[in-house]
Amino acid sequence: MTKPLNIGMIGYGFMGKAHTNAYASANHFFPELEYKPVLKAVCARNKDKAQVFADTWGYESVETDWREMLKRDDIDAVDICTPNNLHKEIAIAAAEAGKAILCEKPLAMDVAEGEEMCEAVEKAGVPNIVWYNYRRLPAVTLAKQLIDEGRLGRIFHYRANFLQDWTINEDVPQGGAATWRLDADAAGSGVTGDLLAHCIDTAVWLNGLVKDVSAMTETFVKERPDAETGEKKPVKIDDACSFMCHFQNGSLGLFESTRYARGHKALYTFEVNGEKASLKWDLHDLHRLEYFDHADDSVVRGWRNIHVSDGDQPYLDHWWVPGLQIGYEHSFIHQVADFLAGYEKGNPVAPTFRDALETQKICDAVLKSAHDHSWVEIS
Amino acid sequence: MTKPLNIGMIGYGFMGKAHTNAYASANHFFPELEYKPVLKAVCARNKDKAQVFADTWGYESVETDWREMLKRDDIDAVDICTPNNLHKEIAIAAAEAGKAILCEKPLAMDVAEGEEMCEAVEKAGVPNIVWYNYRRLPAVTLAKQLIDEGRLGRIFHYRANFLQDWTINEDVPQGGAATWRLDADAAGSGVTGDLLAHCIDTAVWLNGLVKDVSAMTETFVKERPDAETGEKKPVKIDDACSFMCHFQNGSLGLFESTRYARGHKALYTFEVNGEKASLKWDLHDLHRLEYFDHADDSVVRGWRNIHVSDGDQPYLDHWWVPGLQIGYEHSFIHQVADFLAGYEKGNPVAPTFRDALETQKICDAVLKSAHDHSWVEIS
Amino acid sequence: MTKPLNIGMIGYGFMGKAHTNAYASANHFFPELEYKPVLKAVCARNKDKAQVFADTWGYESVETDWREMLKRDDIDAVDICTPNNLHKEIAIAAAEAGKAILCEKPLAMDVAEGEEMCEAVEKAGVPNIVWYNYRRLPAVTLAKQLIDEGRLGRIFHYRANFLQDWTINEDVPQGGAATWRLDADAAGSGVTGDLLAHCIDTAVWLNGLVKDVSAMTETFVKERPDAETGEKKPVKIDDACSFMCHFQNGSLGLFESTRYARGHKALYTFEVNGEKASLKWDLHDLHRLEYFDHADDSVVRGWRNIHVSDGDQPYLDHWWVPGLQIGYEHSFIHQVADFLAGYEKGNPVAPTFRDALETQKICDAVLKSAHDHSWVEIS
Amino acid sequence: MTKPLNIGMIGYGFMGKAHTNAYASANHFFPELEYKPVLKAVCARNKDKAQVFADTWGYESVETDWREMLKRDDIDAVDICTPNNLHKEIAIAAAEAGKAILCEKPLAMDVAEGEEMCEAVEKAGVPNIVWYNYRRLPAVTLAKQLIDEGRLGRIFHYRANFLQDWTINEDVPQGGAATWRLDADAAGSGVTGDLLAHCIDTAVWLNGLVKDVSAMTETFVKERPDAETGEKKPVKIDDACSFMCHFQNGSLGLFESTRYARGHKALYTFEVNGEKASLKWDLHDLHRLEYFDHADDSVVRGWRNIHVSDGDQPYLDHWWVPGLQIGYEHSFIHQVADFLAGYEKGNPVAPTFRDALETQKICDAVLKSAHDHSWVEIS
Repeated sequence: MTKPLNIGMIGYGFMGKAHTNAYASANHFFPELEYKPVLKAVCARNKDKAQVFADTWGYESVETDWREMLKRDDIDAVDICTPNNLHKEIAIAAAEAGKAILCEKPLAMDVAEGEEMCEAVEKAGVPNIVWYNYRRLPAVTLAKQLIDEGRLGRIFHYRANFLQDWTINEDVPQGGAATWRLDADAAGSGVTGDLLAHCIDTAVWLNGLVKDVSAMTETFVKERPDAETGEKKPVKIDDACSFMCHFQNGSLGLFESTRYARGHKALYTFEVNGEKASLKWDLHDLHRLEYFDHADDSVVRGWRNIHVSDGDQPYLDHWWVPGLQIGYEHSFIHQVADFLAGYEKGNPVAPTFRDALETQKICDAVLKSAHDHSWVEIS
Repeated sequence: MTKPLNIGMIGYGFMGKAHTNAYASANHFFPELEYKPVLKAVCARNKDKAQVFADTWGYESVETDWREMLKRDDIDAVDICTPNNLHKEIAIAAAEAGKAILCEKPLAMDVAEGEEMCEAVEKAGVPNIVWYNYRRLPAVTLAKQLIDEGRLGRIFHYRANFLQDWTINEDVPQGGAATWRLDADAAGSGVTGDLLAHCIDTAVWLNGLVKDVSAMTETFVKERPDAETGEKKPVKIDDACSFMCHFQNGSLGLFESTRYARGHKALYTFEVNGEKASLKWDLHDLHRLEYFDHADDSVVRGWRNIHVSDGDQPYLDHWWVPGLQIGYEHSFIHQVADFLAGYEKGNPVAPTFRDALETQKICDAVLKSAHDHSWVEIS
Repeated sequence: MTKPLNIGMIGYGFMGKAHTNAYASANHFFPELEYKPVLKAVCARNKDKAQVFADTWGYESVETDWREMLKRDDIDAVDICTPNNLHKEIAIAAAEAGKAILCEKPLAMDVAEGEEMCEAVEKAGVPNIVWYNYRRLPAVTLAKQLIDEGRLGRIFHYRANFLQDWTINEDVPQGGAATWRLDADAAGSGVTGDLLAHCIDTAVWLNGLVKDVSAMTETFVKERPDAETGEKKPVKIDDACSFMCHFQNGSLGLFESTRYARGHKALYTFEVNGEKASLKWDLHDLHRLEYFDHADDSVVRGWRNIHVSDGDQPYLDHWWVPGLQIGYEHSFIHQVADFLAGYEKGNPVAPTFRDALETQKICDAVLKSAHDHSWVEIS
Repeated sequence: MTKPLNIGMIGYGFMGKAHTNAYASANHFFPELEYKPVLKAVCARNKDKAQVFADTWGYESVETDWREMLKRDDIDAVDICTPNNLHKEIAIAAAEAGKAILCEKPLAMDVAEGEEMCEAVEKAGVPNIVWYNYRRLPAVTLAKQLIDEGRLGRIFHYRANFLQDWTINEDVPQGGAATWRLDADAAGSGVTGDLLAHCIDTAVWLNGLVKDVSAMTETFVKERPDAETGEKKPVKIDDACSFMCHFQNGSLGLFESTRYARGHKALYTFEVNGEKASLKWDLHDLHRLEYFDHADDSVVRGWRNIHVSDGDQPYLDHWWVPGLQIGYEHSFIHQVADFLAGYEKGNPVAPTFRDALETQKICDAVLKSAHDHSWVEIS
């Protein structure tokens, strides 16, 4: 018999759906888990919309004030799917209420907020994790495994892109439920916190901490209509951001993100070049990993295109048979499965708030560097 | 409020899992559906294993005799996930019991069986469908849409492969729960019914009926151990099968399937060449469709690699956002969603038993042609 | 100092240009060769056009009657670039005149002609070779090397396509200098002799002789204008041809060629599946070879995409540096280089007329099988 | 009848071979040219090696002192294939001697040298060009054409990489004939002048001038043996260099080059993202261009993979037939053909020394920025 982990979800948008699906599915595919999420309550200001979401997914109740939800004894864990500017307040309150916390990325609006959040969860001793979900796509987890096994040797280069094209049209508004990511007040930054944060989380996980950065940002469209009023307002977020960096292991990093790369929907790619081997991955074919092993016999040496769908590859003994791919949403299911396994044992599960703070530090440094036109050390 | 469609599942193997997941998920992503599957019972001879499966997925009860399950009034629809040699008997009994039927592919051991099954469901007037799931991968559905819109013009060529490599090792046994597909008594045929049947179903759907075939089969490994006794026994299935054909629309077909194509796990591919355009798809990157439009300006003409993940492409308004891919299992979810929509309206949903009988006719003709070394007309 | 090999070229079309470039370039890149081609004469009925060609390439003289050219003592080797229906007469006369012969493919209009040609060159003892040039693309030569080293083990499958789309338009004429390949009188057959002959030559080289075939041909456009008169005439060639076969080594073959595969300009592809490894190649990326080695560690196993441009890969120590690709024309340069090396030592260089006769036998059997709708043994 | 352009070649290494092949082949494929190169003399300090080269390629004479060669009246044009540190002196002397000059890239050791060279050729009024050959690969020329036609609209992003892996081994020496590119005295810089210079030349050609740069360089291997003495010496070149930049048209640039990217032999790639369309290219498949046109109907929108081998694409009416690819060396043949056409008309042919000076300015700024850890304006 499984034990319940009662979930209180805050938000019902795109991420609310992805997380809820993970709670609903994890135990089907990971039946060995002791704990099983129970969809206890969903919270949102708009009660009608929250009720529709609750009905669709089977949440037992609806709340309109997250403070009320935090008071409920029948909630064990809180999932924060709000815009970034609410993460801190909710997370600290949730920690104080003794709830486990699963927080959307990026952790916070800035490092100062993130520090407070880390202190709160650590003081309260509550399980905490941030939804940097891409770590748990099997091909990405396999990349981590290969690097940790030493197959790449000394690392020389790490490069990552996150390319989108959905804001090229000047009529895309800022603010509102669908486009709060273009509103600096709600999002904190543009592509840096939204896209680069993913790239940085993976990079730090795979290749270690960063020493310093030099960055460049650009806002191509200077004014956009407000999503609610239609009034044209200055755009304060970064439409594009690139940076160079040194990792602490001596390797060089190069990162770019933009929402103006025509032809790319959500092309997150990374490549790692080591002395002995290299690897490449991209989100548009997330079930594949490319791997080059210099030890291969020279006449037949080439990039191997690995279809990551076999039972001896990460997570895949829980799914189908070789050759049958899984998709985007499975990264969330894996994160829930790992979180539940850690919850059972009382172990922290990465990326914790503290792990995510490292990414926040780099994001802040990137924005400062772009502002100051100078290299910035990561403290 | 949704209405229940009470499901009785027969079998708990790979397909039982894929179908059950579809029943559990369909209404989350297609909340407009009126009917919602309820996992009422799972049936299998081994009660303990069936109980584990029921616990994992939330089936309310377990049966060990499918005849008993068919007697239950609280079962509306029966899902047949047994080896092929049981399809006919169960399906006919289920039809007589007035159950809706969702039957694994291939429909039957041969055309004669299939005819009986068609007659039974048509006489009983029960909803019926066969799990040729690949039709409902968005990229494949998109291919159908493009052909139906006339974008390809007159079709000249249709070619399809289904390449695997999992039986090359001579120690892979035949028979038993995991390898009944190598046992002619349980499976009827080898790759023809297992793999080519998928290729043929898609082909007939996209390109219409077939006039005649010339086929070749081979059994590379002549003896394999029995899965239960370990005793070496002659292999009676086809390890590989190729055939050429004429479609009724005048185009030429070329098909191949094998379990001896080293390097290919489950590489189902098809390509259609028309006067005005061509398209290509493969299961190892099932979220992509390649499309060549001869009307493009000649200097920039080339195969377009379409990442089928946008809301205006089939089924995808129900999933994530552009660039985020779905996987194999979603084909089953789509089939359940379409079946439920048809069930509500009383409409048949393809591929019905009758549709699947066309594929069975071609499979039978292929096996006869290979046996006789001659062309065989499809009756 | 090099020794001259005086070349008499018959024809000045596409192939005349490709061969002449090879004669002009071979010694630049293979300076170790003892013999060096000298462009002594080009022969064509149209003197003006022949003269233009001679001026462009530096041929010393022009002939309008190949019989006259064969009489010249200052011609050592004759290159036959005429339509297929002239190969036999010229080759036999050239052999009788004691000339070395380099003959365009296919060898002849049929096996009977080919037999006569083989007998003539063997009786005369003159060096002879047929321009199945694709063997000498480095990636294809590497495939041969890998198979010969036993890296693939027992072969199960060989499949090849040659897909074009240039005759879909019904206004493309038949006959004449540019489109004699659509005229059965000049070409003997359509895609079978033009395209499949290449596929078969490579297949026999890589995988050995063929036992029997079952083929299907089609002529999609039934009438075309005559290139000279404009008058509509029945089309007598095969627009498309597919065949299945058994190789003598027990493997299965599947071949297809067509000029109606919209989107493919000259897509010659082959794939070989062996017990231990597989390989794939295609002409549109002729500098690459894909290779799958089942012995690779399973978690990092995948198709290797080999960029065949390194000095330890076939022919490439004669060219540039790793990563810099060569192209189509280099296959001819390599054939000339190998022919000159054999000429110096008095060794036959494959594919000789006798080698090419094997391909002719299979082509003839394919056409007979398509005509008779039955399997045909290769004698 | 053609007119001779008498060539004096200085150097006989890799580039000497590539250029000489272009002189020998250009008129075969571009027979409309009025001028035809004549291989008059090759100059190198080592007379024996120069003689071998002359014999292989048909140079009429050998010189050992370039000053002597410049005195010869029978030399019309000088090709400078020496290490970079000799470009200036030879070029200025050649200009003063009234010779046309074809100079290897990069133009010079630095901007100061380059300015002198520009002044010399402009004062003398001699035709001059630099071998930034990649502009004349048909796919790259096609990219230029598409941008100039306005198909991309406003440009947002330009990114380019040049990735190699041949110096990872610490035993690769510096200096000497084969590895002078690792010797700062001969080469001036490492990957910046060798690889990034190519990327920059293309970028400026396609996307216009650069305003400012922020760069980072690294030398991973600190000491290497001297190629002649074997003695370990500090490495003074840059092993890797990345930079960010602003173009004058408001777009952002991101560039990287390295010789430590395991798995990449010579992977020069660029991508341009515009408002209306994007394009991508890479040197490992130099005959292809990828193109994304946002105007395509949305359900079939995708990156088009253009096989640049058709007669209506740049330069290709001079080569084979659709589907048959050309290679690396053809870029040089096209440059010679264009140079000869300009020579005939008295027109400058890009990239002239003055054009190449722009690239030199950016290279110098990149090195200064990396040294100073600050943004540097391009003067």
